[in-house]
Amino acid sequence: MIKVGIVGYGNLGKGVSIALSKASDMECVGIFTRREPSSITPEIPLPVYSMDKLMDFKGSIDVLLLCGGSATDLPNNTAGILKDFNTVDSFDTHAKIPEYFEKLDKVAKENGTLSAISIGWDPGLFSIARALFGAVLPDGKDYTFWGKGVSQGHSDAIRRIDGVKNAIQYTIPIEDALIKVRSGENPDLSVGEKHYRECFVAIEDGADKEKIEKQIVTMPNYFADYKTVVHFVSEEEVKKMQQKLAHGGFVIRSGSTSENINDILEFSLKLDSNPQFTASVLVAYARAVARLKDEGKTGCVTVFDIPLKYLSPLSEDEMRKHLL
Amino acid sequence: MIKVGIVGYGNLGKGVSIALSKASDMECVGIFTRREPSSITPEIPLPVYSMDKLMDFKGSIDVLLLCGGSATDLPNNTAGILKDFNTVDSFDTHAKIPEYFEKLDKVAKENGTLSAISIGWDPGLFSIARALFGAVLPDGKDYTFWGKGVSQGHSDAIRRIDGVKNAIQYTIPIEDALIKVRSGENPDLSVGEKHYRECFVAIEDGADKEKIEKQIVTMPNYFADYKTVVHFVSEEEVKKMQQKLAHGGFVIRSGSTSENINDILEFSLKLDSNPQFTASVLVAYARAVARLKDEGKTGCVTVFDIPLKYLSPLSEDEMRKHLL
Repeated sequence: MIKVGIVGYGNLGKGVSIALSKASDMECVGIFTRREPSSITPEIPLPVYSMDKLMDFKGSIDVLLLCGGSATDLPNNTAGILKDFNTVDSFDTHAKIPEYFEKLDKVAKENGTLSAISIGWDPGLFSIARALFGAVLPDGKDYTFWGKGVSQGHSDAIRRIDGVKNAIQYTIPIEDALIKVRSGENPDLSVGEKHYRECFVAIEDGADKEKIEKQIVTMPNYFADYKTVVHFVSEEEVKKMQQKLAHGGFVIRSGSTSENINDILEFSLKLDSNPQFTASVLVAYARAVARLKDEGKTGCVTVFDIPLKYLSPLSEDEMRKHLL
Repeated sequence: MIKVGIVGYGNLGKGVSIALSKASDMECVGIFTRREPSSITPEIPLPVYSMDKLMDFKGSIDVLLLCGGSATDLPNNTAGILKDFNTVDSFDTHAKIPEYFEKLDKVAKENGTLSAISIGWDPGLFSIARALFGAVLPDGKDYTFWGKGVSQGHSDAIRRIDGVKNAIQYTIPIEDALIKVRSGENPDLSVGEKHYRECFVAIEDGADKEKIEKQIVTMPNYFADYKTVVHFVSEEEVKKMQQKLAHGGFVIRSGSTSENINDILEFSLKLDSNPQFTASVLVAYARAVARLKDEGKTGCVTVFDIPLKYLSPLSEDEMRKHLL
């Protein structure tokens, strides 16, 4: 049995607890939180501990699934945790991944631990599609579209702005761009020409709407490169929208193997719950981290470094027999 | 530069020569054939050698791309070649893969070589989709559909029947099955309930149509489990159909992460030329074989064993920066 722990118990942490309850080769020792443990009633019966108790579990947890956000939780905390534990996280600030990787790779190698970063569906499964498609169809272009759906990372980033009580952000593909790509026309499209971002924001009484809107639309990495629409709404409205966490998207590569011989490769997802699905991907990669660590692997890894055989609960023989 | 050779020069071999001409990190030393070398005029200017000369290249070729068929060429020849060379092939008789793997794994380990088998889009990319989807969405069902398109392996198998001059086989999804799967209904479908197989066969004068038809429809692994329709047509008609080698298909997994929270994952291909695309996949995996061999890896491997970083001509840093 692979022994794991959950760090952080928001939507992603809840999803991880549910996904782990279905993994017969994994055992969850508990949830670790910065909140008061008694304030949490887990969806799945699991002990809840304060983060202060984490070190008591050193040596008895194979992998920690880090379920914090990418804006501050993961950049601030992962390196410290990685000194004593193997980790998996869903760090999704694309532009900062190289820097995050370098930092964790160094810590992990110094401490003999292993960290799989940027696991989920984008980065994650969509990255796999982009890398695979580019390798097998080198003469082509690829396009990633998201939505319509809530981006947890972007909603989180808005919520961290002073004066914001709550917020939700929808990423929406620009229909015209989508039609062009699927036709094999291979248009040049900047990231902001493929989607727009719609934000619903509830603010504190007396907060400066104009200033908050400006902070959102100019936020680097998150909103600056997109057409962004901000709506100020009541906290109740935001809460209602937060009940529905559907998402989806697709990666398309359109290219050719020789003149006038064209191919279209496509990977798509339609998800009722973005955090539950991301959690399910994290659990598969936690299995991989435990197995790779057993083989002596240390450092920082991404989906590009991990063979599929490590993700599946099936044996290699079974995989070849049933899935190849 | 990775030095490679092409063994066999049918449609797949031609596709490989074209794909290699676009890979700036690979150099093709030549084509090896069982035919009279002077009878071959390659699409891309490359030397053509008799298979008898292959051993002269021992030590100066990093990987051989084996472009023979799965019915007899690969089962008969790969093990012998693997004693002296690293190989990549597109062995696609699904039911016989475990046996083929075991045999080659033994030969490769005894001889310190490396063999990547069953590379292409199915087995190959579709296998990746099945394994990945199953690992990240364990509570679900997956479905593979092919077509409409020509199956090279099945056409080849018909052509090997006594009395058959030429033949082409189309695999066609059963529309009703497709609709059910995409709806998330999760129907139980046998492989033969998802597709039918349509064969166009030209026979020798005086050959026994009834006997040939029976040999086709009862052929194990290839046709026995499918509704198969056989049409006897002229050799000219078959040849005309053989000019068009379009194919495609998709892998869908429909499942749930918790009650009433459902996800649909889909991977699809639309290919103008099945052999050219399969060739392009073989070339990416030839790169992986050369790199893995450099790291000391020996034995037999499949798409489940090879991390994506080995397939891409990009550096690991570039992949994390641009594709993750």
